[in-house]
Amino acid sequence: MYGKEIRMNRLFGGGRNTVIIAIDHGMFDGPIPGMINLQETITRISPAVDGILISPGMLTACRKAFSYRGAPVPIVRINWSDVYCFHWNYNQANTVVASSVEDAVSAGAEIVLISLTIATGNPETDARNVEVYCRLKNEAAKLGIPVIGEFFPAFSDKLKREEMHEKVYTGCRILSELGTDMIKTFYTYDFRKVTESTPVPVFGLGAEKKPSQLEALQLAADEIRDGARGVVFGRNAIQVPDPGSFQEALCEVVKNGMKPQIAVKQFKLKD
Amino acid sequence: MYGKEIRMNRLFGGGRNTVIIAIDHGMFDGPIPGMINLQETITRISPAVDGILISPGMLTACRKAFSYRGAPVPIVRINWSDVYCFHWNYNQANTVVASSVEDAVSAGAEIVLISLTIATGNPETDARNVEVYCRLKNEAAKLGIPVIGEFFPAFSDKLKREEMHEKVYTGCRILSELGTDMIKTFYTYDFRKVTESTPVPVFGLGAEKKPSQLEALQLAADEIRDGARGVVFGRNAIQVPDPGSFQEALCEVVKNGMKPQIAVKQFKLKD
Amino acid sequence: MYGKEIRMNRLFGGGRNTVIIAIDHGMFDGPIPGMINLQETITRISPAVDGILISPGMLTACRKAFSYRGAPVPIVRINWSDVYCFHWNYNQANTVVASSVEDAVSAGAEIVLISLTIATGNPETDARNVEVYCRLKNEAAKLGIPVIGEFFPAFSDKLKREEMHEKVYTGCRILSELGTDMIKTFYTYDFRKVTESTPVPVFGLGAEKKPSQLEALQLAADEIRDGARGVVFGRNAIQVPDPGSFQEALCEVVKNGMKPQIAVKQFKLKD
Amino acid sequence: MYGKEIRMNRLFGGGRNTVIIAIDHGMFDGPIPGMINLQETITRISPAVDGILISPGMLTACRKAFSYRGAPVPIVRINWSDVYCFHWNYNQANTVVASSVEDAVSAGAEIVLISLTIATGNPETDARNVEVYCRLKNEAAKLGIPVIGEFFPAFSDKLKREEMHEKVYTGCRILSELGTDMIKTFYTYDFRKVTESTPVPVFGLGAEKKPSQLEALQLAADEIRDGARGVVFGRNAIQVPDPGSFQEALCEVVKNGMKPQIAVKQFKLKD
Amino acid sequence: MYGKEIRMNRLFGGGRNTVIIAIDHGMFDGPIPGMINLQETITRISPAVDGILISPGMLTACRKAFSYRGAPVPIVRINWSDVYCFHWNYNQANTVVASSVEDAVSAGAEIVLISLTIATGNPETDARNVEVYCRLKNEAAKLGIPVIGEFFPAFSDKLKREEMHEKVYTGCRILSELGTDMIKTFYTYDFRKVTESTPVPVFGLGAEKKPSQLEALQLAADEIRDGARGVVFGRNAIQVPDPGSFQEALCEVVKNGMKPQIAVKQFKLKD
Repeated sequence: MYGKEIRMNRLFGGGRNTVIIAIDHGMFDGPIPGMINLQETITRISPAVDGILISPGMLTACRKAFSYRGAPVPIVRINWSDVYCFHWNYNQANTVVASSVEDAVSAGAEIVLISLTIATGNPETDARNVEVYCRLKNEAAKLGIPVIGEFFPAFSDKLKREEMHEKVYTGCRILSELGTDMIKTFYTYDFRKVTESTPVPVFGLGAEKKPSQLEALQLAADEIRDGARGVVFGRNAIQVPDPGSFQEALCEVVKNGMKPQIAVKQFKLKD
Repeated sequence: MYGKEIRMNRLFGGGRNTVIIAIDHGMFDGPIPGMINLQETITRISPAVDGILISPGMLTACRKAFSYRGAPVPIVRINWSDVYCFHWNYNQANTVVASSVEDAVSAGAEIVLISLTIATGNPETDARNVEVYCRLKNEAAKLGIPVIGEFFPAFSDKLKREEMHEKVYTGCRILSELGTDMIKTFYTYDFRKVTESTPVPVFGLGAEKKPSQLEALQLAADEIRDGARGVVFGRNAIQVPDPGSFQEALCEVVKNGMKPQIAVKQFKLKD
Repeated sequence: MYGKEIRMNRLFGGGRNTVIIAIDHGMFDGPIPGMINLQETITRISPAVDGILISPGMLTACRKAFSYRGAPVPIVRINWSDVYCFHWNYNQANTVVASSVEDAVSAGAEIVLISLTIATGNPETDARNVEVYCRLKNEAAKLGIPVIGEFFPAFSDKLKREEMHEKVYTGCRILSELGTDMIKTFYTYDFRKVTESTPVPVFGLGAEKKPSQLEALQLAADEIRDGARGVVFGRNAIQVPDPGSFQEALCEVVKNGMKPQIAVKQFKLKD
Repeated sequence: MYGKEIRMNRLFGGGRNTVIIAIDHGMFDGPIPGMINLQETITRISPAVDGILISPGMLTACRKAFSYRGAPVPIVRINWSDVYCFHWNYNQANTVVASSVEDAVSAGAEIVLISLTIATGNPETDARNVEVYCRLKNEAAKLGIPVIGEFFPAFSDKLKREEMHEKVYTGCRILSELGTDMIKTFYTYDFRKVTESTPVPVFGLGAEKKPSQLEALQLAADEIRDGARGVVFGRNAIQVPDPGSFQEALCEVVKNGMKPQIAVKQFKLKD
Repeated sequence: MYGKEIRMNRLFGGGRNTVIIAIDHGMFDGPIPGMINLQETITRISPAVDGILISPGMLTACRKAFSYRGAPVPIVRINWSDVYCFHWNYNQANTVVASSVEDAVSAGAEIVLISLTIATGNPETDARNVEVYCRLKNEAAKLGIPVIGEFFPAFSDKLKREEMHEKVYTGCRILSELGTDMIKTFYTYDFRKVTESTPVPVFGLGAEKKPSQLEALQLAADEIRDGARGVVFGRNAIQVPDPGSFQEALCEVVKNGMKPQIAVKQFKLKD
């Protein structure tokens, strides 16, 4: 029962905001720059970050990174959806179980991420996606494992900013109503509305690589300013010359409110 | 076994009719006016009402509202259907389980609402929907948890009044035959026929926002006059200047037979 | 998960102490004075009390008493032990399941009471009793049903006051370590030590009938003064000329700190 | 599967030996000096220690102590045996399940402790104890939860040193053959034989309070010298004037091989 | 279904007799000479042998020995019985499950050994033992895992040779009737009758250490001559100066019919 509370508190150091590094892209993209050899990639993640989002198979392959006291929390993505496969021109968002919560816990997961895509245009797909989400979410509750619900709209790369906001605004609330402990989603131009209409912590994601590290830090700062309780950054935190320094800068921005410009200087970030 | 009776009687104060406030819209609509911050919304619900219809996730987020003796009964919607997503132009009515009855009870539910849509035009969908309804209904029976079966036709916003009546008339009886303890459904122009052909209490819903509070109260009065044992009002009871006063007026109309015009005056309702 | 919290809060009106009336004696004693016709007895319980402790069968027979909004919480005893059968000169404390938690919930229970007797002198009995207690306690957790663990020593009627204190002091802590949400136990001459060494609310019981209502109220006052969060009174609250008035006086003493002498006067209690 | 490896590695900081503080005594003894108010006791445990052994109920009551990143690992005892109740003159060693592994994980456990007593003199008891041990151990394997098997002989307080050694020597190996990830047991005068004949890490326990902290540290040093991979200390680490300092000294002795005499001086330990 | 056939055939190289080395003694005896450090012991087993009988926990600890193509087949004992604990003067033969077949397969088992003791004198024990045997045996069948049923009489060390024969003669047939794929049992003075009355391969065991290796080899030769399809030797194959050579000699005797005296010479066995 209180396992959820204990495990969630480990993500929020002293009640502060949280920084999660996502390296689960390969589950949909295959190898991408900076994540070719994931066992090597993970050694470049700063121990200052609070959690690492990873796929079920890579949790096992990279288990060393989680095998010491105070290591970042392993957060495992346990469903699969074609919505992430835009490189194959997919966007139906057919979603399936990749791992039961029990299997994930058995592999070492402390928190699970379950994605939900609805408003796909196909109501049958929506219904099945809600079913998959709820089944896994309820399994997690039984084991005291916190759930990060990820709201990820279809055609995310083609939506206009108003459409994206509308989808995220609606989707995050639907996630909250179905039941979730935390939410990961896209930043939108009116993000405060999103965070104000959900009763659980919202994390902003980084999405495509920003042209500069300053812009990436600015995105994080904007997300926090608009009510996010943390960020989930992947390519922006990995595909940089010195990931460790960028991640430490990111922690300062997210947890201590440091200005991005100052962080860039202090951590000597060069693009 | 008799747990159902005990729990149902708590909904009908002294055997009188019941007033339920629905704030579960976000499960399909996302945030809507008056329900942006649900934890705040729920503080504006009058303790005079008998029950609050809420989603699984929001029961947890808003648990304070149910955490005192004599609080309104928490009624939790435990399935999800695209039939409620007309804003996405959905109407196939694919229905899935969102929460087992055990999960809902574990979260604090005292009564569950399970929706059923049939006569969708697709017999396969109908059959699956009956299956989902019955599975959950039977689970509830084992735990002594009363079930409100909601009959909600597809294309509810496009049906002519005769069609709506016909669907509701048929659907409510099918719900009764499958087994339900109470029914929530649309009011129809010949509603007495509906209430007369079902052996369990029927609650009329409020549906879209009425232009005036008087009209909303009149709808409630009509429903009761035609044999309803209560009402389930959402937007009409929340999207008003003073929800508490409107809800108290609604209680008078539904429980004590006060005339709507008198209630409007007595509770000083202004649109 | 949070069902426990919601249901427990209903027992503690506004965070104040709680008064529970026990009428489950017949489960071990058969009919006793004041509880011959339990359906009639229960009508003489004041609606001011917070909960009623009752057996599984009588919850069904007396369900009316719980069938209105704001009724006292039904608390059902779900195991049976010969430790309560001193009238048959039993004291081995063989304990068995009388009702699963699911069965109790199905009958309408909101909270369950599970007794534990250990230090019986027979280690095999102790072990079995711990097993029965834990099995039921874990079932309750899964359904979000709060547990009152009752620590009841063997030979309770023959223990010297030091022995009773020692047993209660040890037993309540063992209950806490095994896991319980609340504890019901005997008052002892050094009761503060008991309440200080358990992390959950402790309720003092009334035990045998006191010679006067003043003495019964004084016992309740002493229990509260020594750290109890409530009382569970049976014969003392029923076998009196006017149970309703006594129970209202008891509520004042337990919840509002009224002096027993003043309560006797205010509620005109005559022995 | 690899969850076990990840979770075990968190107990062994950098591959070094481990220090576990046991505060689960109340599960058998009730309150003991230094552990009257366990929520207060736990605040006096040094964050330098690697794990805390606690009962199921107290994990929930003391959950704050585990709710931050890098907190000591919560290790939960999940079976109950009368072998620990020598204060009641019990020694049959009847053993029962107190909590399933799933229940423990749901409450936040990362590692479970399961005790085994055999060679009790009663083969039926032995067989049942093996059965309970194996059932729980196998449950833990499915969830990737490491198991500390505790070998605890009957009549531990009355055994001669040769008898104790013989029992421990045999019992630890039987635990290993049945399957365990780590072992907690008594130190014996020929302890190296014990550690050499088991393939998993062995932890020496502290048992009754030593007359001086120096002697307690010496016991720890002896255990490590003889092949133990860690210690599990309870009363010796709590019932001292300054538990935090003693525990830091203990960590130095166990992890870094500091001489007990030097540790006493450096940490200014006074009895 | 045919998985059993595939796996069994691996034990009988080219249809010849089989040699299994047992090193599972620690499951009942603790460490014994020659098997103190089992990870070291197992390196001294000749790769010429067909299978190794081992306990569940030691399969994991010694997994290297089974981790190459053509390694001896891992045979795991999955129940526990006090009948093997004569060192504690036990002989009731209370039998319990140590590992489900699924758990054993998950740990790497290819064949399981399940023991059965009946004619214990206590019919209740007999019945329970048959139940445990059959439950596990049926589990194995579902997974295509071959079962070696071990018939092991109570008081095996005190039986006269006629009693032993009678018990083994009866017991092995009962095993066959309950269902088993192979049988391991004691050699008796009239062993051909045993092998002739069972339809499955019978393996003779070695039992207590013979005074000389020649006598051990002679026992093996006798067993084969009387119809055994293999031997299961433990102490006789391990507690010798050069286990590897003895085991190779044993293979020659069992598989190729070499005379024991010749084998002793050829493999230069010295006691």
